[in-house]
This record gives sequence, structure tokens and C-alpha cells, in this order.
Amino acid sequence: MAVIGTGKMGADHVRRLHEVISGARVAAVADIEPERAKSLAATIEECTAYTEPAAAMASQEVDAVLVASPGPAHEAALVEALDRGLPVLCEKPMTPDTASSLRILEAEQRLGRRRIQVGFMRRYDVEYAKLKGLLDGGELGRALMLHQRHRNLAMPPGFTDEMLITSSVSHEVDATRWLLDEEIAAVTVHKPRATSLAPDGMNDPQFVLLETVSGALVDVEIFGHCGYGYQVQAEAVCERGTVRIGDEQGLRVSVEGRWGGHVPPDYVERFEDAYDREVQAWVDATRRGEVTGPSAWDGYAASAVCEAGVVSQRQGGRVEVELVERPDLYR
Amino acid sequence: MAVIGTGKMGADHVRRLHEVISGARVAAVADIEPERAKSLAATIEECTAYTEPAAAMASQEVDAVLVASPGPAHEAALVEALDRGLPVLCEKPMTPDTASSLRILEAEQRLGRRRIQVGFMRRYDVEYAKLKGLLDGGELGRALMLHQRHRNLAMPPGFTDEMLITSSVSHEVDATRWLLDEEIAAVTVHKPRATSLAPDGMNDPQFVLLETVSGALVDVEIFGHCGYGYQVQAEAVCERGTVRIGDEQGLRVSVEGRWGGHVPPDYVERFEDAYDREVQAWVDATRRGEVTGPSAWDGYAASAVCEAGVVSQRQGGRVEVELVERPDLYR
Amino acid sequence: MAVIGTGKMGADHVRRLHEVISGARVAAVADIEPERAKSLAATIEECTAYTEPAAAMASQEVDAVLVASPGPAHEAALVEALDRGLPVLCEKPMTPDTASSLRILEAEQRLGRRRIQVGFMRRYDVEYAKLKGLLDGGELGRALMLHQRHRNLAMPPGFTDEMLITSSVSHEVDATRWLLDEEIAAVTVHKPRATSLAPDGMNDPQFVLLETVSGALVDVEIFGHCGYGYQVQAEAVCERGTVRIGDEQGLRVSVEGRWGGHVPPDYVERFEDAYDREVQAWVDATRRGEVTGPSAWDGYAASAVCEAGVVSQRQGGRVEVELVERPDLYR
Amino acid sequence: MAVIGTGKMGADHVRRLHEVISGARVAAVADIEPERAKSLAATIEECTAYTEPAAAMASQEVDAVLVASPGPAHEAALVEALDRGLPVLCEKPMTPDTASSLRILEAEQRLGRRRIQVGFMRRYDVEYAKLKGLLDGGELGRALMLHQRHRNLAMPPGFTDEMLITSSVSHEVDATRWLLDEEIAAVTVHKPRATSLAPDGMNDPQFVLLETVSGALVDVEIFGHCGYGYQVQAEAVCERGTVRIGDEQGLRVSVEGRWGGHVPPDYVERFEDAYDREVQAWVDATRRGEVTGPSAWDGYAASAVCEAGVVSQRQGGRVEVELVERPDLYR
Repeated sequence: MAVIGTGKMGADHVRRLHEVISGARVAAVADIEPERAKSLAATIEECTAYTEPAAAMASQEVDAVLVASPGPAHEAALVEALDRGLPVLCEKPMTPDTASSLRILEAEQRLGRRRIQVGFMRRYDVEYAKLKGLLDGGELGRALMLHQRHRNLAMPPGFTDEMLITSSVSHEVDATRWLLDEEIAAVTVHKPRATSLAPDGMNDPQFVLLETVSGALVDVEIFGHCGYGYQVQAEAVCERGTVRIGDEQGLRVSVEGRWGGHVPPDYVERFEDAYDREVQAWVDATRRGEVTGPSAWDGYAASAVCEAGVVSQRQGGRVEVELVERPDLYR
Repeated sequence: MAVIGTGKMGADHVRRLHEVISGARVAAVADIEPERAKSLAATIEECTAYTEPAAAMASQEVDAVLVASPGPAHEAALVEALDRGLPVLCEKPMTPDTASSLRILEAEQRLGRRRIQVGFMRRYDVEYAKLKGLLDGGELGRALMLHQRHRNLAMPPGFTDEMLITSSVSHEVDATRWLLDEEIAAVTVHKPRATSLAPDGMNDPQFVLLETVSGALVDVEIFGHCGYGYQVQAEAVCERGTVRIGDEQGLRVSVEGRWGGHVPPDYVERFEDAYDREVQAWVDATRRGEVTGPSAWDGYAASAVCEAGVVSQRQGGRVEVELVERPDLYR
Repeated sequence: MAVIGTGKMGADHVRRLHEVISGARVAAVADIEPERAKSLAATIEECTAYTEPAAAMASQEVDAVLVASPGPAHEAALVEALDRGLPVLCEKPMTPDTASSLRILEAEQRLGRRRIQVGFMRRYDVEYAKLKGLLDGGELGRALMLHQRHRNLAMPPGFTDEMLITSSVSHEVDATRWLLDEEIAAVTVHKPRATSLAPDGMNDPQFVLLETVSGALVDVEIFGHCGYGYQVQAEAVCERGTVRIGDEQGLRVSVEGRWGGHVPPDYVERFEDAYDREVQAWVDATRRGEVTGPSAWDGYAASAVCEAGVVSQRQGGRVEVELVERPDLYR
Repeated sequence: MAVIGTGKMGADHVRRLHEVISGARVAAVADIEPERAKSLAATIEECTAYTEPAAAMASQEVDAVLVASPGPAHEAALVEALDRGLPVLCEKPMTPDTASSLRILEAEQRLGRRRIQVGFMRRYDVEYAKLKGLLDGGELGRALMLHQRHRNLAMPPGFTDEMLITSSVSHEVDATRWLLDEEIAAVTVHKPRATSLAPDGMNDPQFVLLETVSGALVDVEIFGHCGYGYQVQAEAVCERGTVRIGDEQGLRVSVEGRWGGHVPPDYVERFEDAYDREVQAWVDATRRGEVTGPSAWDGYAASAVCEAGVVSQRQGGRVEVELVERPDLYR
């Protein structure tokens, strides 16, 4: 992989590709600031730093490109990747405006095959994915409305009213199009009175109505300075029930006289993620020459307790657990 | 990696190491049934099938061993791995009884360094990890009691009363020792009347009391045939508050006149997992020569909606969204 | 009390005044259908049935009037009550339109003192009252937005689009005015595509935006045929936090990096309602010559268990509970 | 009614009977401290203060007795009431020990009809009543276990280990007998290490196991100094599902692969309590010569907003609300 852009987002993707992701290797990074690229490359084995995106993509080692440079630099990087036929994961927004977006669409059509994935990561969130599955399953009937909330603790300096739409609500725009599987036909932005926690002159929060081509109505509360944390919630109102996510409760459905959620059938579903983390932690420790998890002592002690338990189970009453003295190796 | 045992658990670990885990490669699998090992090895590039665990571990390609064979086979595999100095992740139980566990402890001490990690995966569950962090942080004071629930939809044929302790409650035994950071001093098993959904003669559910050496009291409801799903819950009762997990609500704390949970400060915490899944999905698709996620059309359409939104924001009122016709490539 | 109108609502209020409410007696009921009034009056001691509201109000026994007749009959009843200076609880809507409402305002001003209370009962709901208290307390800062949901299983035959506003959303209109303590300056009604569960031609659900004079923005989802039950929810978005009700969780507040609710300090708050119900049930049974609650046997048996508990507490171990044989009187 | 004992509990019951309860009048109060009885009687019309319970019960005005004196005084009061054939609501514990309880049972049997109700008020709590209804309905099958939690912020000075059982756990003892409809056969009290927030020498919390005659197992955590509030929770583990109360979520059931609760079918169930409070508040204000609830102005303003809403609904777009100037009477 080549990673273009080594700022906060790019550096995090490099770390992710290196430490978390299976089946990928970061062979090149590029940044307009050579020192930043170099110091990041130095954290990865056999990774070369470049100043030019094109040079990074030209490396023999590079089969795919992750673009995490600032928005205005995306178009050139995407064109370069398309010229080389490389698959690209491009952070959102794909490009800063529709005119440049259309040029990218045309270039990809000329190539004749899809190479570009845009970084709308909510589609990969577990709760959003379950919501999408439920809507597609059709049990709740057609969606008539979506209520969405997007709250931030505070915005960075320089954040503008316009960015509330282009940088923040753009996530709900994609989520709406994806969840409902149709385009948006019209937009109306409302401005309630502003919070005193926002910078002077900023209209924050705002309330955005989206109308889809089939007539669904979608509302989005965007609040840049809610003052208490980051909170993303969505509720779909369907013909036969409603479903909510983002509420610290998984998927919460109201249907047929009841509200609630799903109890998994087995440990595979409940602890799948724990198994993944366990094995990853073990692999990581192994590569460092360490053993960090539950030890043989833990295995022994659990056995000793269970043996006492089986005696209590058979005979009744309280059974004391006898352990050998704990060896130094396990202290 | 070598994976010893290619039954349900072993095969799942092979898939995990191959598709999910970063930095590991399955070079060898071993199973007493040669055909099973071969057909699993065939799903992985450059992976060799063996009948003997020792032969798999002897491979030049093997730096570490994951033991997922039946419990009675663990001791021999562990001894073999220790002889070779290989790090091992061994599924629970480490060995079937304390006598064999003690032999493993001695063997590892002779080697003089820890090589064995036992597969108590709950320590890697996100909610358990947060609970552990909260208890260790000390804000709630010392833990006085733990209430634990362990419910299964139903147990496989042949599951015995004894296995309720050795196979099921052993998870709570380890969780207790880990969360409270101390050993268990005594066990008492109680048997309420049995559910009619359990096989004839089986005492299910059971209720287990564990006493730790420092005097904390722990109760475990083990229910093998609860009939509605798999549910694992824990509640720690501390000197200044209580905290519960497994309740479809994340970490739920009661302290200082309120109950509730945590709102994350930013998208990094909220969507970290979504970013991981996004990039993994992209890497997987790239390796298959595909692009599967949000397309350039999705990037363009989001831009077009946001542009209309900015116009509505500036001028007020409803603004229609104009899209070019959707090219065939993106249908 | 006189109760005017003995339909479903009026009859329920008669029952309420008779069985639940302290300090009131229903002395007169009036209904345009004499038989309906008579049969209801017959269920109450010393209650007279009338056809004319004025005649009921003229009774010497009547100090106050509850108006539960159909909306178009309210104006005449209110005028009659005002002429007599009687306090009135009038079901909503007060009158069917603003012209008649203004005539009532003028009549009450001529009388020079407030006599009329309108039946907006949400102000008396425990959760709404807590929400109002929290907003008035000011801890969360000024409210900027209110999100409200009002869902019905289905509407009775003859229910129109217009009634979605005048009969249903009117509750949210009052709740908004009361919670925010200000008037509403403008209204916009949006119509998403209709559910197939509504009658042909009905636009259901609808989405109503209310703007208050100080600039707060309020949205109301009104859904007459949601198909799964009756659900009323409200969320206030304030400068320093958000708070939600109607969610089967009491008052749920998000503030300062956490979400959650209140743990009461004592049994008085937690069980106040249970004490009220207990004593009411006992009084009701006493008046019927019965004793229905926990018996002396229950008091004895609890003592016997507690005595055994104290022995176990002192001596340790399991203590059997000895009970005398249960006398026939308590079977 | 006569109320015997005018301490905290007795005075609260006098207020309840006077202000909340329908169909009862407090005609007599008695207390060993004459001044306390007199000052309480002075708050009620036509209520006489007595020193002797027997004298209060002898009043011609008294048809029933509420006993809220200290436990050791109960037996004499109950005997007196039985002698007069008066129905009694007696605060718990009925009497301080089983010997005196048995004497009461005998006295009531000699009378030949039940006259005594014991004040186990949890049976009247809405959530407990729903739990009882669900267990009795049989949908979840037989109850096998009950888990109960009983936590207090702190206990008053002088509270002893023994009172944890006799004064606190006695509530769970009655709840168990009532919910499961059977007697308790044995008790075991466990003492985990004590919280440092309890007085020196007090074993707090404690953990009590109750075994019912049919073999159900019940555990009770009693915690007198949990430090964060008052929390009472119960979970029934049945053959086909589990159900929990006391969790700020109403009745929460896990059954058939899902967890959750009930959505009411209509406003009658959802707002029944609000209607009761509304009418009681109106009656109370009426008796004070006041009108305190939503005014005619509120009725008018709601109409005006709804009229604007209907115009928007018909014509589309935003419609401003026109209000006449608010008259002084409604400021």
C-alpha cells in the first residue's frame, strides 16, 4: 500500500494498516512535508517516504493507494491512481465540489472499471450495518422517515457554518443514501438560535431536512458544540416499526407492542470480537518475544477451583480450594 | 503459526489468523484425522498438513503454536512446544485436571520463561476490559461482591452436570481471579430445582458461590438451557458504587446518586472499530481485485447534496438537488 | 362536582373522581342523552342526572364543573360556568377554533378571575414534570431545540389529516409552550410519503416544525398509524446537555461526558406511589367489608424466616425455617 | 380512620389519608406523646388526638385502624382492634417475633374473619405488580431462581447487623413468598468483607440465600451503606425466560432470542397516572379557591397554532401564528 498524506488521519491509517489489518503492508508514504513522511516511514519496516504522490504510486511495491491528504489534493491523487489502474481508498470528501467530482467520475468511466472507494466509514460501523440489514430485510416495511443526530463536543478553530454541512452532515447524507438506497431530491437548512458555547457569529446547531426522490423525509440535527461529548444517533421510522441506533443499547426496535433488542444465540456471536482481540494480542506479543495473557498458572488455578466445585456439586457444602505455592515465574 | 487441532475451534482460529489477524501466517496445521487437516490446509497458501503435533511444530516455518485440540491432548502438545521454546496459545482448559496442570507449570519453570497463554478470551472482551479498568482505577473503591450470570440457549448432547463447572463456570472462575486480582479460597455449589428444558436427570441451573482469599463473595448463576439465548452478565459491587456489563448497554455504573454510562469525546473512540473494518474490507476486496465500498458516485452525490445544503443555509428555503444521470458503471 | 358529558372520557372522569380522587364528590352528571346520564349517575351515591348542563351546574351540591362533552358544546358550558363563577376543568380543545376561544377569554376577563383549566394532561405526567423541572432549573442551559415523537397504533374511523394537527399535535403545541415558557411564532407542516397502513388518501405520518418567538426550533413527528403501539417521546437539546423522556428509562440526561439517570436517595421517593396504592387498596377493601392485602399469616411467616436468618447470621450455615401449620383462615 | 402512632411513618400516613386517598377520613390519632398527637390532629378537620390507642379506636367516628407505632406496641393495638372487629393496616413487622405473631394469628382465628393487613407495600409497586402478573401468567414457565438487590445510601445510627435481616431483608422475604406463592424452607446468611463506609464492626453488605419448599433458590444482596442511593432490583429466572425490575426500564424481559419491554396500546395506559394527577391537582386547587393549571389562554394559543398548522398542511410552506395581545389576567 501507498498512503498519501501523513497528517493525523494518514498517520492513523498507516498505524492501522501496520498493526491491525491482515493482508496489507505499507510500502510507501507521501507527504508534501518530507520530514513528516520520513519520520512516519521510519516506524515501518521497508517503507519508503516520498514527497510526490505520483512517485509513491510508481513504486514497484505498491498495489493500492490510500488517500488521506487534504481535500483539495484529492483530485490529482485520484487521477494519478486511475492512470495507473490502482485501487484507491479516498478519505471523504472525495473532492471539494461537484465539478471536480464529475471529472473523477468521467476519468473512472474512461478506465472502464471501478477503482475508487470513498471513506464513508459509517457503513462499516456494527450498528449502522445492523440497521441497514434490518431495513433491507423488509420486516419493518418501507422507511418513511429518518431522524438523525450528530453532536460534537466542540469544533476545531476555523470551523465554519458551511463546514457543518460539507464536513459533518455529509456523513448523514451518505448514510441516508445508503440506508434508503435512493438519491436525495431537496435540502432545507433551518437555524435555531445558537448556543452560547459556539464561537461568536456561528449558527450552531442547525437542523437539516432532506427529501428523497421517493418521498421519504429525513431530518438531521447537526450540533458542533454540544458541550458534553460525541453522539451519533439514527432512528428509522418504517411502516410497521421503528428502529434506533447510537443509543448505547445496540439496535433497539419497536414493533408489535414491544421495544427491545436481540439476545445472541451463542458465544460465537457474543464473543467473536473478543476472540479476534485475543489472538491479535497473542500474535503481537509473540512478535515482541513476550507472553502477556493468562498464564499457565491461571490455567492451573482455574482447574483447582473447578475441581473443588465438582466436589461441592457431588457432596454438597462448602469445599476449600487447595493451591500449591505460586512459583516465582508467575508472580 | 502452527495450529494443532482442526475441529470447529481450530478451523475457526485458522480462518481468524488468515483473514483477520495482522502479522501472522498459518504455516502448519495438525490433526489426528489427516483428511480434516489436509482440507483445511488447502484453504491457505503455503500451509502444510500434519498428523503429529510434534511434526507441525518441527517445521522451519513455525514460530508459535495455537493448541485447539481436545483437552486430553493438550498436555503432550504443551510439553512439545515447551521443549522447542515455542510460544503457545492453548485453548481452555489448559489440561483436564490439576495434576497435569502442575506438570505443565513445572515444565515451564524448568524452561525458565513464560511461553504459555491460556485461552480465557473474556479478558479481551471490550466490556470486560472496561470493567477491569474501572476496578483497577479504584474510583469505586474495593470490590466486595461479584454477581455473574452465564446463560446458554441449550447445551450439546452429552453435556454433564460436571461440565457446567469445568467447561462453563471455569470462565467465571478466571474472570473472578482476573478482575479481583486474587485467588479463590472456597467453593459452594447450590442446585435449585431443575428446568424441564434440560435433559432428564440434569441439575440445571446451578448457583455457585466463590469466596476469595481476601473475603470477597462471588456468585455465579450457570444455566445451560435457559431457552432464549446466550447471555453473559457481571456486576461488581464496590464500596462506592456498582457497575454492570453484559446488559446491551456498555458499562453501566451506579455512583453518587446516578446511574449511566460514558459519552465518548470524539469520533476516534466512537468509530475506531468502523475505521478498522472499513480498511480491512477494502484490503480484502483489493486482494480479490474488487472494489466494493462507497463509490465515486457516492462521493459525487454527497457533494451535490452538500452544495445544495450550503445554498439553503445561505439563502434560506428549500433547494433542489441536481444530479447528472447515473452512469452505467455505478448502477 | 358536576360532570358534563358522559361519553367515554366523561364516564372515565366520573369513575376517577369517585374512586381515585381525594376530596371530591360527583353530585351531578349531564348528557344530551338522558339514559346515558342516568345509568352513569346510578353508579354513584347521591348523584343526579341531567340533560342540560346549566341545570346540573345550578344544583346546590355543585361547586365545580368538569366539561367532557364534545368540543363544539364546550363554549356554551364554559360560558354557563363562568356566569356562575364555578371553576371548570375543560377537556381539550377548549373550543374548536380561535374565534370561540377569544370569546371565552373575554368572558373570563369580564369575570375578572381565572376559573378555567384546560385538560392538557401531559403537564401532570411524571416524566414531563421532571423534564420541566430540569429545564427550569437551568443546569443544562437554554433549550435550543425540542424533538418530539407522537405515535399511535391506529386512529379511529373518520380521523382526518386535519385532526392529526388539531387533536394530536395540539398536545405537543401545549407541551412546547409550557416547557419553553414562550409562544410559537410559525408553523410548517411536511408530509413524507404515507404509510400503507393508513386509510387511502390520508397523509400519515406528518412532520411539523414549530418556531418559538425566541428562536428555538421544535420538530414533531405525528404518526397516526405506526402499527405497533402508543409512543410519546421528547428530547430537549440545551446548551450544555440533552435530556430525553418517554423512552422507558425515566429522565435520561446526557451531560459532561456521560449519559444516564438518577438513583433516588431513599424509599420515600422510590416507593411513594406504592404506599399510596397500598393505602387506597386497603381503604377500598375496608369500605367493601373485606381484607385483601398481606395477611397476619404473611406477617408471621416473614418473622419466622427472619428469625432463622438471624440464627444463620450469628452461627453461620444453613438454618431451616419452622412454621406452624397454616390455619384455614389464611388458606 | 384512626391512626395509631404519629411519628415519621404515622404522620406521613395521616397526610396520605387526608390528601391523596379517596373515601377515607382521619377521625382520630393516638400517640404516647400527647403533644405530637395534638399537633398532628390540628392539621385535619374534625380529628381528635388521643394518648391511648384503645380510646382512639373507641371513637364512634372510627371504622378502621392504621397502626404505625413502634413494633413492640403493635401486639396490643392489634388485639384491641380485633376485639372491636375493626379492620387494621399494620406497618411491618406485624410484631417483633414469631411468638407474638402466633398469638395474633390465634386471636384473629378466634374472631373468625380476617381483619389484619400487614404493610408489605412492595406488593403495590407498579413494577412488582407487573412482575407478579407475568409470573402468574405462566408464559415464562416456573420460576427457578430469584436474584434480589436491596441497597441503601446509608443506615440510621443504631442500625445493627440483625436489623439488616429483620428490617430490610424482611421485604425480600415477603416479596419472595408472594411472587413464588410458597413458603421458605431454609435460610443461609453469608458475609463478604465489609465496606469501609459502614460503622466499625458492622458486617455490611450481606448475602442471603433462601430456599423455598418447592426447591426454588433465592439470593438477596442486602447492602446498608452502598454510598450512592437507594436501589431495589429483582430478577426472576424462569424456565423459558428471565425478567428484571428496578432497573429504570420498567419490566425487562428476555425471552425467545430478544430482550425488551412493552409498548402500551394507547394513551389510557400511558397517561392514566397523568389524568389522575391532573384531576387531583384541579380538585385540590378548587378547594383552595384557586385555578393553577393550563389556562384559557393556553387553550386559545394552542388553537391558534393548530389553525396555522392546518393552513400549512393544506397550502404547504411556513405559516406565521397570529396571537392577540396577552391579557393581564393570563400573565
